Parts: sequence; structure tokens; C-alpha cells
Amino acid sequence: MFVLVNLKAYAADPVEIATVAHDVADESGVRIAVAPQTAHLERVAETGVETWAQHVSPVEHGSHTGSALAEAVADAGVVGTLINHSEKRLKLADVDGAVNAAERAGLETVVCANNPDQVGAAAALGPDAVAVEPPELIGGDVSVSQADPDIVEDAVAAAEAVDDSVDVLCGAGVSTGEDLDAAGDLGAEGVLLASGVAKADDPRAALTSLVEPLS
Amino acid sequence: MFVLVNLKAYAADPVEIATVAHDVADESGVRIAVAPQTAHLERVAETGVETWAQHVSPVEHGSHTGSALAEAVADAGVVGTLINHSEKRLKLADVDGAVNAAERAGLETVVCANNPDQVGAAAALGPDAVAVEPPELIGGDVSVSQADPDIVEDAVAAAEAVDDSVDVLCGAGVSTGEDLDAAGDLGAEGVLLASGVAKADDPRAALTSLVEPLS
Amino acid sequence: MFVLVNLKAYAADPVEIATVAHDVADESGVRIAVAPQTAHLERVAETGVETWAQHVSPVEHGSHTGSALAEAVADAGVVGTLINHSEKRLKLADVDGAVNAAERAGLETVVCANNPDQVGAAAALGPDAVAVEPPELIGGDVSVSQADPDIVEDAVAAAEAVDDSVDVLCGAGVSTGEDLDAAGDLGAEGVLLASGVAKADDPRAALTSLVEPLS
Amino acid sequence: MFVLVNLKAYAADPVEIATVAHDVADESGVRIAVAPQTAHLERVAETGVETWAQHVSPVEHGSHTGSALAEAVADAGVVGTLINHSEKRLKLADVDGAVNAAERAGLETVVCANNPDQVGAAAALGPDAVAVEPPELIGGDVSVSQADPDIVEDAVAAAEAVDDSVDVLCGAGVSTGEDLDAAGDLGAEGVLLASGVAKADDPRAALTSLVEPLS
Repeated sequence: MFVLVNLKAYAADPVEIATVAHDVADESGVRIAVAPQTAHLERVAETGVETWAQHVSPVEHGSHTGSALAEAVADAGVVGTLINHSEKRLKLADVDGAVNAAERAGLETVVCANNPDQVGAAAALGPDAVAVEPPELIGGDVSVSQADPDIVEDAVAAAEAVDDSVDVLCGAGVSTGEDLDAAGDLGAEGVLLASGVAKADDPRAALTSLVEPLS
Repeated sequence: MFVLVNLKAYAADPVEIATVAHDVADESGVRIAVAPQTAHLERVAETGVETWAQHVSPVEHGSHTGSALAEAVADAGVVGTLINHSEKRLKLADVDGAVNAAERAGLETVVCANNPDQVGAAAALGPDAVAVEPPELIGGDVSVSQADPDIVEDAVAAAEAVDDSVDVLCGAGVSTGEDLDAAGDLGAEGVLLASGVAKADDPRAALTSLVEPLS
Repeated sequence: MFVLVNLKAYAADPVEIATVAHDVADESGVRIAVAPQTAHLERVAETGVETWAQHVSPVEHGSHTGSALAEAVADAGVVGTLINHSEKRLKLADVDGAVNAAERAGLETVVCANNPDQVGAAAALGPDAVAVEPPELIGGDVSVSQADPDIVEDAVAAAEAVDDSVDVLCGAGVSTGEDLDAAGDLGAEGVLLASGVAKADDPRAALTSLVEPLS
Repeated sequence: MFVLVNLKAYAADPVEIATVAHDVADESGVRIAVAPQTAHLERVAETGVETWAQHVSPVEHGSHTGSALAEAVADAGVVGTLINHSEKRLKLADVDGAVNAAERAGLETVVCANNPDQVGAAAALGPDAVAVEPPELIGGDVSVSQADPDIVEDAVAAAEAVDDSVDVLCGAGVSTGEDLDAAGDLGAEGVLLASGVAKADDPRAALTSLVEPLS
């Protein structure tokens, strides 16, 4: 299972979370990555943790002020990127463009989607993985794998029907080891989580407990 | 073959074009529809021509000022709608929402896309048809079916791989009967055209000539 | 005072509301306009009521599929348009472009804004009027003129400081004659309202009661 | 005069340009800043050059994946930010929100605009400065101060009419000392430039020559 911790625009110290994530990944053997603000990518990558971007723009080198150029993100030590997160929805043509931009820069790609139909659509664009996150569960206390297990199974089936080389992650409300276990049982290859770690009183304890069933 | 004439925001008289299209459809037996500005839908529908919308919004009844509610469009006598035209690109989640909104209002749906990957993605959202229109050819003098026949065949294959009940149309530069014939030979079930009729000196002659190979 | 009834994407029958508004305007001598969905503009204008658009696009005649061309809207019998409603926010350059497009088509313009700073910004673009609508009060039961009278006075001052020929309207939560009176006392030249009429059990009674203090 | 070098998404080495800019600023006494990609902010700031962001998002700490949080940008050593560049146009309400976000994080603000009307609108939102950049001249060989001197004077007048504490910069096609001189003569307090330095064969020579009239 792949655990991707999205720091969004939270007030949490990105270097502290990154250090914790690096330690817990080392100790547990579980693959854990951290996705901070773009301006924090370099300092997060310097902790040694696997570092992801929250977004890249569907552009090449050129006149694109205010974009997140995939090559610039890669320069900062990043190895993968979220695309089309529900808080950063892109036009269909731009999801395609961002996947291509990320691949051009050697970044792994996870395209987010709200539901199984959109998972199928995202899979058709050829990313490494898609992530299903029902918007109504994001930021809540109930995990998608508990609240709506069907959506995870349907997402896995939708991606497989289009391109069986595309992995499926799930997210929204994930915070415990049970959530992680349940996600794996439903066919997910990983989870996205955010507030469960980034807003935890003790991020180390939260992350350690999360990956405990996998260790 | 289905011929959809998109009037965009052209200066052409929508009622004149609609009347011509209605007559030519009657005479030729070819299915021809006209998609005018939303504010012109009602007067175009009153000509008796098959009337399409250029866009519907991914919304339900509610607080959505400035939207194009599918039910309001249907009230005006519309039977189908373009979604995600290259001049009105939508977010992936909103393409999904607009397809659902259109279906809820009983409208036929054609989702536009730039390339075969995006055609596959659009097909996964369950529209009645997808239309492939390479942006670089739109508004030009060379038809997609002549300039880039592979893209049409690849689009047909991409849609079929995802959902073989989804038809494929093609567009960009279509203006002659030969273009229409070529599109059909490549597996397209119809064409989108715009300036070839809307900006013609003699729209009736242009449209008659266009459908001549099908009559 | 000018009373502009925005029908948004509500399920209300636009022709029924328009007929009521026309009658009440005639009986009371108060200026009342109705802004329906774009696809309903023509049938609303045919009732004889003053008809407004909810939005126009910052475009001229040309390749703009899915736009709301100001000239097409004007064709349908419209005399004015909202621009930049909080449910249809535009880019700054597009607010400018939409004001210019509307003026080109002979439409009166009301640019919406959230707060006095944005009212000043909107006034600098040269519309006929600006409307201040605090987003947190839209659709609620408490009128802006009661809940936040300072914002109306500050908006009037902000517009006057930039261009004293620009009128100020206010909106959000307006539903009674007292709200209308209070708005006028604060310097507003009119009100935007929506659910207070469009969702009323008896729209005629609601509108009659609303304008009663002005009759 | 303030010289702001926007690196956009160009292929130029940001650290090399930053080092050059730092040296030329030191030698000439002219204020020169560099605005790189967000992912490059930290390494550019470490050169000692005055570092600006190309964009900040209109958000506070919270669930805003893919945003450019002003505080995160400030953490990287940034002292100011462009807002609403013509390649990153924002909604009017978001220009307001981004100015407020930047000020909250202690960043200096320059809001870009296409024409004098939009300069007036931008000035009403209370930034430190506005920059007028006619889109048709951006990236070209002719400087705004040569091609369209009226637009710079009109922009200065428009900003002053709204708030005389707001400085005016100009941009588009600026590349020589004469352009800089001309901009100052027209009332501008600085210039934005991009390709004139970032794509120069010899960025040091280009920048030295540019500021020569001011030294």
C-alpha cells in the first residue's frame, strides 16, 4: 500500500511532517510520501522523504506566468504529482495535458476523481494511478472505505475496464489502520490522506498507528 | 450520418440558417441539426429544424445565476446538446455533471474532445456520442478527415475500447461532401461543422452540396 | 427604486413570474425587471415585462461556442444584464470585456461585487450600476440592509469616490417592503432579489408587498 | 525605478539569472527583483536577490490543494508577488482575495491589468502597485512605452484618480535602457520584463544595458 499525505495549505510545519513520514516509512517499510505546498517542495525533499507535488500545470516551457511547470517541480526533488484534486479541478483537456507534462518530466501521476465514471475517464488518459475521493467525505471523520465501500470497488472495476495497468487509490476520511486495511481489501493500492496526519496532535503517532496493520 | 451545424457566436441570421437546414434535411433525408446561441434557441426551434444547444451547465434547479440549465434549454424545444466544445472546455467533473444534467432533461449528448485519449475519457462518462476535433484544424480550410484521418480512426477505436455504444463524430474544417464521405469511411457517424455553412455566401448551396453524397 | 428579480435556475415558471412582475410594475408605478435563464429570455420578454439577462460573455461575434453573446441576448428583447454575479464570477479582464460587450449591444449593466473594495473596482470599469451582495447573506432570511447596513453605505461611498455617475444597488436576503425602504435610506437606487419572489408561495403577494412602501 | 524580471516558465536557469540580477542590482544601485517558478523560489532567494512570486492564491490556511498560499511563498524568502498577470488572470473577487492574502503574509503586491480602466479597478483593491501590460505587446519586440505611450500615461492617471498612493509599473516588450527611460518619463515607477532578460544570449549584458540610464 502507498500512503500519500497531502499537506494542502494547512498550517502544519511541512518539514516536521516530512521528517516524521520519512522515519515512519523507514521503520515500517511502508511507502509513504508527502505532498506540501509548491513553495515548500525543496525543503521537504531535503528531509529525504518521498516528495510529491499537489498539482502541475498542463504547460511546457514558455510564457506561462503563475504555472506549476512539471520540470520546475521535478527540479525541487519531486517524484510524483497529484492531478485534478477535488480542490484543484482541471478541465478535461488540461488533465490530459498535465498527465503528459508530468510524464515528460519523469513524474509519477495520480489523477483524482469523484466517482467511478470519472475514474474510468481519468484512467483513459494514461496516468500511473487514479484516486477516488467522494467530495462529500473529504475532511470528514468517516473513511470512504467504511462509508461507501461500493464506490471503491466500483472505481477499481471502472479503471480495470479501461486500462488494467492503472492502479486505484482511495481517499477521504482515511485516518486509521482499519481504514487502510479496508481500502486494501476493496482493491485499492494506496490511500490519500490529509487532515488525519497533518492536523493530528501527534503526527508521528497518527502515522505510526495508520501503517501498523501493514508493518 | 448526422450533420450538426454549430452557429457559435457568428453574425449569421440563425432563423435563416435554421430554415435552410430544415429544408435541406427534408429534401435530402439526411439528419441535420442546428445549434444556435442559447438566447436564439426558441426562435430556431420554431422553424421546425432539429435544434441543439451549444452547452449546458452541470447544475440542477437552484441558485445558479448565469447557468444554462438543461431543463430550461429543453423547454425551448431543444433535443440535444454539445458539451465541452473546445471553445467551452469544462472541468472533468463538470463534463460528467453536464452529461448527467442533459440526460436528466431528456437531451441527447455529444461530448467534444481534442484527441483519441480524451475521446476515451469522454466515452467513459456515458454520453450518446463523442466528437473529436483537433483544435489546430478548427475554423480552417482543411477537413480533419483529409488532414488527419488517423485521428478519426484512433478516436473511433478509443471510444469503442471504452464503450462500444458511444458513437463518434468528427469535426474541424468540414465543408464539402467529400469531407463527409471521408468521415463516414473512417468510422464516424456524423460531423460537426460551423463556418463552412454559417459563413457561406449561400448557406443553402453549401449545405445541399455537403449532403449530396448522402442523398 | 429599481427592483430586479433574478430567477437564477429556480424551478419557478418564468412566464408566470414575469406576468406578475409586469402587472405589479404597472399597478405600482415601480420599475421592476425579471432576469430568467437565457433560454427563457424570449418568452419572458414577450410578456411585456422589462427583461434582463443574468450574464453576458466578454466576446464579440466569432468562434465562441457556448457563450452568451450580448447581441443575441439583446435580440431576445433584453434591455439590461447582470455581470459578475457571485454565482457567475468573472475574471477582472472579463468583467471589463462583458461591460463593453453589453454597452456595444445597447444593454444596461449592473456589475455585482462582494464588498465595498470590489464595488470601487467594478465602478472603475464604467457600468451603469454596481450591486453589493455579501455572499454570506445571499439566499438567507435576513436582508443586507438590516444585517449589515454599513456595507451598503460603504459601497455607496466607494462607488461615488471612483465615479459618481455609477448607481449602487444592494442584494442578499431582500424580501420585504421594509428591506426596500431601508436600502433606499442607505443610498441604494435599487435592489436585487431572487428567492423572496421566485420561491414565494404567492409571488404576486410577495412582490406587491415588497413595493408597497414605494407605491 | 523598480525592475521586476519575470521568469515565467522559461527554460532559463533561475539561479543563474538571479545571481546576475543580484550582481547588477549591487553594482548599479537599481532595485531589481526576480520572479521564478514557485518551486524555484527558495533557491532563488538563497542567491540574495530580491525574490518575488508570480502568483499567490486568494486563500488562507486550510483545505486548498494545489494553491499558492501566501504564507508558504513568504516562507521561501519572497518579499512581493505579482497578482492577475495576463497569463494568470483571476476573477475580480479573487484579485481582491489575493491582495488581502499577500498583505496578510507581509508581501508587497503588484496587480497586473490590460488597460487603464482595469488599472483603475485594480487600484481600488488597495495593492501597492498596478502594472499595465497591453496583451498584444507582451513577448514582442516593441516596448509599451514606445508603441503605446498613451496607455502608460492613461494608466498613471487612472490609478491616481482612484488612489494616489498606488504606484504604476508598465510592461510588455521592455528590453532596453531607452524603454526604461521612456517608461519613467511617462510616470511609471518601474517595469516588468521577461524575455528581454530571461531569453537573452547574455542575461548579464542585457540587464546591465537595461539599467545603464539609471546608474
